Amino acid sequence: MKYTPKKEPSPKNVVSPSVIKRLPRYFRYLRILIREGKSRISSGELAEMMGVTASQIRQDLNCFGGFGQQGYGYNVTYLYAKICDLLGVGAGLTAIIVGAGNLGRAIVRSSMFEKRGVDVVGMFDVNPLFLGQDVGGVLVHPMQELDDFCRKHKIDIAVLTLPKEAAAETAAALLGLGITGFWNFTGQELELGEAAVVENVHLGDSLMTLCYRICSEEEKNGK
Amino acid sequence: MKYTPKKEPSPKNVVSPSVIKRLPRYFRYLRILIREGKSRISSGELAEMMGVTASQIRQDLNCFGGFGQQGYGYNVTYLYAKICDLLGVGAGLTAIIVGAGNLGRAIVRSSMFEKRGVDVVGMFDVNPLFLGQDVGGVLVHPMQELDDFCRKHKIDIAVLTLPKEAAAETAAALLGLGITGFWNFTGQELELGEAAVVENVHLGDSLMTLCYRICSEEEKNGK
Repeated sequence: MKYTPKKEPSPKNVVSPSVIKRLPRYFRYLRILIREGKSRISSGELAEMMGVTASQIRQDLNCFGGFGQQGYGYNVTYLYAKICDLLGVGAGLTAIIVGAGNLGRAIVRSSMFEKRGVDVVGMFDVNPLFLGQDVGGVLVHPMQELDDFCRKHKIDIAVLTLPKEAAAETAAALLGLGITGFWNFTGQELELGEAAVVENVHLGDSLMTLCYRICSEEEKNGK
Repeated sequence: MKYTPKKEPSPKNVVSPSVIKRLPRYFRYLRILIREGKSRISSGELAEMMGVTASQIRQDLNCFGGFGQQGYGYNVTYLYAKICDLLGVGAGLTAIIVGAGNLGRAIVRSSMFEKRGVDVVGMFDVNPLFLGQDVGGVLVHPMQELDDFCRKHKIDIAVLTLPKEAAAETAAALLGLGITGFWNFTGQELELGEAAVVENVHLGDSLMTLCYRICSEEEKNGK
């Protein structure tokens, strides 16, 4: 049977925020399938992999046109390409890392950015010992060069891995230099107004959820 | 007016998972209030700080007995203590960090564990260069000592910051040594069965959400 994708509605107008939140998971699992050389998958198989129901999968993917076909399932490469497109992978976004301490180094050395098509073009730090270092192929610049650097390159994302105390002031300066996307690991709430898109990572919240679940389990088991 | 807490229902039986998920945020904001020396706060003020509605706050906190009183608001210290109790802060949980690379070091040096009452008692790594190092007051041990160490200490949480390739095997071994809580940064899905509590951190998902939001904004603004 020839694979013919259904006619799609204009995606970004119809996909609900809760579906969008789940798309990165689809992205991850589809990458695994591609790596394994699988060209198509049923909603049932995908559901089992992801630990959700097949009907949830069908519902989610129907939101932006289906991509699947009764008796065939999903074309893995096609679905992956569509999800990449929706999520802005391949939109050519660029990022800088502000703070070249352990967290900044861990993040820049991970394959996260490359996998998601984000180009990390520089790291910045106040520590003179770090300057000129090559961290996973990215050069550490002094903070004084930030201004010039941002005028020369179009930067979409600032990854904030600097100390909390310096976060608010630095973020405001970066916004002034035209950067509007902030991936904020500092734990400092940023008030940058509507022009900015801020994604906060609060690792401590995740740790607390784990502690809560461990204590609940122990209670359940009468420990 | 004297502050008299309402009679509370047995908390863990009535609090819904979605409320539990929000509790770490209350924890964070109440810590700020305590630091600022504030002893009481109205649901309206707390709502403004947290960027939610006052009715959401009242609803959430009512789930486990209220803690508030008409015309008085919430007693900050009392509410903080209750939330700590619910979340297992002060339950005396212990953790080890498996993987002393940049991410492990960044995590152990943060104040996350101390704030949440989790005691980090050791780090482990295969790299002989790291052995015996003191990272933020925590000693790096060789992986060969893991077995002995876990028999001598009761460990509740293994923080997995080792390479993805070694994650599944190491986690299974740790479970065999009696550790049931896993804070998993490796990106590897762990299949440890029902005896284990696994909290996965997928930083890449957060990055993708940010990229999506940036692209949506740019589209909206006709860029």
